[in-house]
Amino acid sequence: MINITKPTAIINPTICKSNISRMANKANSNNKTFRPHFKTHQSGAIGNWFKDVGVKSITVSSVIMAEYFSLYGWKNITIAFPTNILEIDKINTIAKKITLNLLIESMEVLHLLQKKIHNKVNFFIKIDAGYHRTGVDISDIKKISVLIDESKKSIKTNFIGFLIHNGHSYHANNKSDILNLYSNTRPHLKTLFQWKEKYHPKTILSFGDTPTLSVADNFNYIDEFRPGNFIFYDVMQLSIGSCSIEDIAVSVACPIVAKHKNRNEIITYGGGVHLSKESIKYQGQQSYGIPVIYNENGWTSIHGNVKSLSQEHGVITVDDDIFNKMNIGDVIGVLPIHSCLLPSLLGSYTDMKRNIFHCMANF
Amino acid sequence: MINITKPTAIINPTICKSNISRMANKANSNNKTFRPHFKTHQSGAIGNWFKDVGVKSITVSSVIMAEYFSLYGWKNITIAFPTNILEIDKINTIAKKITLNLLIESMEVLHLLQKKIHNKVNFFIKIDAGYHRTGVDISDIKKISVLIDESKKSIKTNFIGFLIHNGHSYHANNKSDILNLYSNTRPHLKTLFQWKEKYHPKTILSFGDTPTLSVADNFNYIDEFRPGNFIFYDVMQLSIGSCSIEDIAVSVACPIVAKHKNRNEIITYGGGVHLSKESIKYQGQQSYGIPVIYNENGWTSIHGNVKSLSQEHGVITVDDDIFNKMNIGDVIGVLPIHSCLLPSLLGSYTDMKRNIFHCMANF
Repeated sequence: MINITKPTAIINPTICKSNISRMANKANSNNKTFRPHFKTHQSGAIGNWFKDVGVKSITVSSVIMAEYFSLYGWKNITIAFPTNILEIDKINTIAKKITLNLLIESMEVLHLLQKKIHNKVNFFIKIDAGYHRTGVDISDIKKISVLIDESKKSIKTNFIGFLIHNGHSYHANNKSDILNLYSNTRPHLKTLFQWKEKYHPKTILSFGDTPTLSVADNFNYIDEFRPGNFIFYDVMQLSIGSCSIEDIAVSVACPIVAKHKNRNEIITYGGGVHLSKESIKYQGQQSYGIPVIYNENGWTSIHGNVKSLSQEHGVITVDDDIFNKMNIGDVIGVLPIHSCLLPSLLGSYTDMKRNIFHCMANF
Repeated sequence: MINITKPTAIINPTICKSNISRMANKANSNNKTFRPHFKTHQSGAIGNWFKDVGVKSITVSSVIMAEYFSLYGWKNITIAFPTNILEIDKINTIAKKITLNLLIESMEVLHLLQKKIHNKVNFFIKIDAGYHRTGVDISDIKKISVLIDESKKSIKTNFIGFLIHNGHSYHANNKSDILNLYSNTRPHLKTLFQWKEKYHPKTILSFGDTPTLSVADNFNYIDEFRPGNFIFYDVMQLSIGSCSIEDIAVSVACPIVAKHKNRNEIITYGGGVHLSKESIKYQGQQSYGIPVIYNENGWTSIHGNVKSLSQEHGVITVDDDIFNKMNIGDVIGVLPIHSCLLPSLLGSYTDMKRNIFHCMANF
């Protein structure tokens, strides 16, 4: 059914393209810019699929990723990560060729950038709307104003708006949790959006996170959609209600190397090295992934659980039927907990027609 | 103090070599073969350091890793992972050139191997001594005997002994836990060892896990030491009592990109992509690593905790002194929870003299 010898990321391009179209349509019908985050797939070839739905500008999570995608013809790239001033040489190289949008959240970085940047760059102020990872507090208009004023002292640092990642939506348990978190954020979004419209009407508010953008339907204080994970989705998104299991577009195919009848466990070549060690509570069990079996066109999920992962081994519990059906030397699949970690772990994707899509791993 | 632009694995070769010597001396003084596991460092150049203490045979965790190290002149390699019959072509290629030792735990794999292998290979029977990941139960002498008898039907499958990974030692909380687990295993080891001495006196019992081999001192039912992690150790080993913090020989240097005074948090470029998402409870806190600061010769651990990791971001809590001392654009280090995951995540190590040691990543 599937011809592999070692753990391999398998994608279903039809599902990917359907996920892309759905999100693009949602952005278009709400009159929002769609600037997808490419950190999830990290593949030049897959990135090109977004050109088919009219995408002109993208998001990445590192300077290296910006360099990689600039080689695939992307001319307008936001690095949605606090500017790492130690990479200024590479930033200067990229900013000479394309429109580069950076994040700033402190006076220190603004000053360092003004001192070291050669060409004009755009920047967003990174806003913390409740996730509390990083960014300027959404209500701190004073700090925001001072940063904007200071940026005007150099023509090379061009303020273009605010960037928010509502990452605490990943802690939701279901759709209504996601919507509740969004409801709590919206009054703050409204205040910032209205302030921006009044004082900086040409700038935008960029908002990203797959859970909220998949589930919500009112975006009147947002100018730009910046989701990433939605192209593949994964078990975490399934568990928090962002997608159905049929929307998951990536699995990891693993050779079966041993079986243990007394505990209905299948041992695979496919461990933390291939899937990461991320796990979540799913359907009452600690889970490192959901098992699937492959057919000619893709895969079907089965009743079972990836119970543990060590460096190279996976342990999958299955029911009697599947246990008896699957043999050593067969291949079983795993829907990953977090698909964004796969490209750096596996380096490429394969589809059921054996097309290979390389990622930027070790670029 | 340290000149990097992105997350980079930094090693201290002096500590590595001291860890190697200590374990080599322990094996030698107990008259045991020392067959180190190279899955931890996965580097040809670092592997060569073991030649200086007389090591002639090694362990790896995948067929690809065996191929890689065979190119560095290693002529006797054990793949300590259940034989993945789907990689038979590569196994045949390697077995033509070097002495290859495989693991077998089922009649299915033995028969598949006898059918498909071209040259003679050695094999260990993989034994489950209580970890319950995989292997034949240590007390199942019947299944063991049948496998050995069946192996003799082909001159190409040469039985050389038993291989045990006491991986449940990783769940220990301190040294006496490790020793207790080992004490529970020893009566079973004794039975198997004595049976082997009586019926298969030319075969060996290979035993591996860094915690037990670091802490125990009675090895009279073991012929071969097969530890891996001890070359670098890590926070997990520190937390279970296998090593002191001074024995940890690897850290990940991360650029500081933001600071949050109100919560004493430093934000780094250095996330799950670089450190993996593995975490443990350490000193009462959920920890993704211990922060360190670099000096001319290495690093010093500081009071603090890597509180969370997302894809590219790290969040490190520190005390006031360190918070005020460290600036955006500086580099802070992280002692990793699990060092064995670093080579596939980071691809190389650098030392304080800027020597670079490449790993087999994407070999």
